[in-house]
Amino acid sequence: MPRDSAATRARILDAAIEEFSAFGLAGARIDRIAAAADANKRSIYVYFESKEGLFTAALHRVIEELVAVVPLTEDDLPGYAGRMFDHLLVRPQALRMSMWRHLERPDTGPDAGDVYAEKVVAMRRRGSAADPGGIPPVDLLVLTLGLANSWLVTPDDLLRADGSDPRSPERLAVHRAAIVEAARRLGDPPSTHRALGELGQGPGAAARSRS
Amino acid sequence: MPRDSAATRARILDAAIEEFSAFGLAGARIDRIAAAADANKRSIYVYFESKEGLFTAALHRVIEELVAVVPLTEDDLPGYAGRMFDHLLVRPQALRMSMWRHLERPDTGPDAGDVYAEKVVAMRRRGSAADPGGIPPVDLLVLTLGLANSWLVTPDDLLRADGSDPRSPERLAVHRAAIVEAARRLGDPPSTHRALGELGQGPGAAARSRS
Repeated sequence: MPRDSAATRARILDAAIEEFSAFGLAGARIDRIAAAADANKRSIYVYFESKEGLFTAALHRVIEELVAVVPLTEDDLPGYAGRMFDHLLVRPQALRMSMWRHLERPDTGPDAGDVYAEKVVAMRRRGSAADPGGIPPVDLLVLTLGLANSWLVTPDDLLRADGSDPRSPERLAVHRAAIVEAARRLGDPPSTHRALGELGQGPGAAARSRS
Repeated sequence: MPRDSAATRARILDAAIEEFSAFGLAGARIDRIAAAADANKRSIYVYFESKEGLFTAALHRVIEELVAVVPLTEDDLPGYAGRMFDHLLVRPQALRMSMWRHLERPDTGPDAGDVYAEKVVAMRRRGSAADPGGIPPVDLLVLTLGLANSWLVTPDDLLRADGSDPRSPERLAVHRAAIVEAARRLGDPPSTHRALGELGQGPGAAARSRS
């Protein structure tokens, strides 16, 4: 692709990510994308065929970026969860695009092959250190992702239930620490608990038997 | 409200939940809602004023239903997470409406007062049994909700990374058990771990010091 074409294509993609993030697939307007990208509509159809093709390419782009910035560290899921939260804070388009995808285009699978292949390999590696508590590797990863993004998709009414501003840097730092701690607990099989239980002593054992 | 009016209003709300769940606020068509409800458009505007008013009422309705069917059991967050998953499986409209709300109408707060008031009270009660690991009550609730819905908003490509059908009853049962176990671990402060650590022995202590 000639240099100018590549630059035009990149500008269109950037503009498309902004437009689709704001309005979704059905609500996006190719006119606005063309204007924001300083490109003409025809070039959009030349490069991406259709609005749906452009949506898929834009989604692919933000997921590629996410995977590059936040690689899955299968030996450190708490760190992964914290870094994922950080990325989604500064790049809310990634989360919004994935939500629009779920609602409007669930069968879009631009990343089926490349992006998740690494995750699958990583999870199988991790699977070798089996979780005696019974959380399968895929479930562990999916639940960890749920921890990472839950705050960002919860209505502010609930987040400020304790009286703090849920978007202040201080509150976000507290929640980030909570995510990391939660992911740590999540990946911590109850074996140490059982070990303590087998010792058969202490208030911890009594608390466990109640739960 | 006369009996017929109440019945018409209820039919409109049911139809609105289906329409908004499928297409969102911008994508929904009042014509389709009127047809599905066997009502006329004028009655929709009489009861709900505007499309936005109808969206708010429909969202309020599914959240009321969710809160009634899955009350927050603050002393049993694992059970709460499992029941939330069950409800969202049979009532995907609740999750889709909340996602559309986040994307299209984040300031919609129909449930700010009534619905979350109960949660706040419950969390404060729970707060009295403070978490020594440092996860505040609101964060604990939000993270638990993230566990409950993560599977349902994750692309199938990732869910089937281990080769199973992510929507089969068997797989869903496995994941439900994983949610409950995850929520149990989440609410389990590391005091028992520290207690074991203070004993200063065993491979568990070494594993902890590495993490």
